[in-house]
Amino acid sequence: MSKHNLKNVCHLQNWISESKFHQWLGLEVVSYEDGLLHVRLPFREEFFGTKEETNVHGGIISTLADATTCFVVMVETGNDVPNLNLYMDYLRMAPGNADLHAYAKVVKLGRTICVSEVQIKSADDRHIASGRSIIMNNAPSRSDIVGGGNN
Amino acid sequence: MSKHNLKNVCHLQNWISESKFHQWLGLEVVSYEDGLLHVRLPFREEFFGTKEETNVHGGIISTLADATTCFVVMVETGNDVPNLNLYMDYLRMAPGNADLHAYAKVVKLGRTICVSEVQIKSADDRHIASGRSIIMNNAPSRSDIVGGGNN
Amino acid sequence: MSKHNLKNVCHLQNWISESKFHQWLGLEVVSYEDGLLHVRLPFREEFFGTKEETNVHGGIISTLADATTCFVVMVETGNDVPNLNLYMDYLRMAPGNADLHAYAKVVKLGRTICVSEVQIKSADDRHIASGRSIIMNNAPSRSDIVGGGNN
Amino acid sequence: MSKHNLKNVCHLQNWISESKFHQWLGLEVVSYEDGLLHVRLPFREEFFGTKEETNVHGGIISTLADATTCFVVMVETGNDVPNLNLYMDYLRMAPGNADLHAYAKVVKLGRTICVSEVQIKSADDRHIASGRSIIMNNAPSRSDIVGGGNN
Repeated sequence: MSKHNLKNVCHLQNWISESKFHQWLGLEVVSYEDGLLHVRLPFREEFFGTKEETNVHGGIISTLADATTCFVVMVETGNDVPNLNLYMDYLRMAPGNADLHAYAKVVKLGRTICVSEVQIKSADDRHIASGRSIIMNNAPSRSDIVGGGNN
Repeated sequence: MSKHNLKNVCHLQNWISESKFHQWLGLEVVSYEDGLLHVRLPFREEFFGTKEETNVHGGIISTLADATTCFVVMVETGNDVPNLNLYMDYLRMAPGNADLHAYAKVVKLGRTICVSEVQIKSADDRHIASGRSIIMNNAPSRSDIVGGGNN
Repeated sequence: MSKHNLKNVCHLQNWISESKFHQWLGLEVVSYEDGLLHVRLPFREEFFGTKEETNVHGGIISTLADATTCFVVMVETGNDVPNLNLYMDYLRMAPGNADLHAYAKVVKLGRTICVSEVQIKSADDRHIASGRSIIMNNAPSRSDIVGGGNN
Repeated sequence: MSKHNLKNVCHLQNWISESKFHQWLGLEVVSYEDGLLHVRLPFREEFFGTKEETNVHGGIISTLADATTCFVVMVETGNDVPNLNLYMDYLRMAPGNADLHAYAKVVKLGRTICVSEVQIKSADDRHIASGRSIIMNNAPSRSDIVGGGNN
């Protein structure tokens, strides 16, 4: 896999939109400046977590964190990189019918192991959740290891 | 909110299917026996994480863990209960075009704080991921606290 | 338990030094300014993690994170508060024969649930580890619940 | 570094006792059977977490988890292996004046990435805490990377 210049926002958007799940979610890369990646998640009706339809499902929040902690490392490495783990603190219910915003940055960029973190905020800038992820650099390609766990 | 008998699999299925996100995901409650909740996630094309379409997106895995760690506590309390956090270890890539299975159980059932854990497995019984969550019992209702974070 | 003014650094030092483990560790409160708590851990020979005696044991790092994520919430609440969990990312080996520094702050201060985070740095200001903790406000006193888990 | 046969309990005890922190803690390897490593931590007065001296400090619990999640992977690999992270759920206060017991096992043994988990129990077999750790196999030696973070 050749390396890509993913610091260009359009290149990064094209890259991440190749995933069918990212397409369905509607993830939009807003900016990448001074190491901070800003991604917007426009609201969809299917995001509601309960029948009262007051808040976005936690799985949507964790998905946004999982994806953006990965993207921000990809921006630096130019390669697809898999998350080894994900830690989420859910701080507030995320209101529905409104965008969510993710602000991700790299904590450590190592030859094998990277760490990144993200803050998820509501459209009115409340702190909804914090996420962290350990990410593997120079992993075998996903198609080589799917189901196998040999990393 | 009155308490519900969610140990009945049909009641639990009805309850969780009230969420639009759960409907879209297609979560199916398989069984609840000896404290172990088994939930099946049938594959959807939109779950693919990369353009190579080899594996399910990590956000789908974390969503399945987030939902089932919550459900298994709900089964015991009879109430909707919010996750305070989520910890995921992604062990293997989840193959696409196949179901995923979640097996969740309660680790601690406290008056205020509960802890539960889940194992995510592939259709061929490989261990895809482990998840854990701290869950708040007797929390204010979600509609009272959305966006507020007063819990 | 009456509330204490723990924003005063000497009061906080006195409070935390009542614990025999804190005494043994030698934790020193350096400052509390603009919500940031700075605690110093002077090196002890017993901290070495391996026979090569190059680095401080991870358990010392996690202890420093566990203690300071708790202290920084105590500063705000004036009460002893128990950690419900601890998440650590170990970023670099901590060199021995040198101080460690913890910088902790509150992420969320709720009526029942608080979240705090800490960065552990070496004497030469390298980022050694990140920690996070969910902390319970208004918990029963420790002597009431030791071994019981009824919170 | 040559590989060691650490499945022999005496060899493992000798290995881990080379660390000054392990010596101070007094960690005792009880058994290694069917992949389950049992380690005992005898009580010391210095473990008390508060002046009321009712419970063991959370840092002692996290240390026991950090060490044993590492040991159980070392047993399989024959090499020293560093923890990349640590996740702890503190379930109950650990009573003082009594032993603690750790039961650790490997969740995944990969060429580069391993995952292990541990349950910490009180002398009367209450579940005090759960821990998990991602551990790096085939890492550079600690003396090569101390302070550097180039893994």
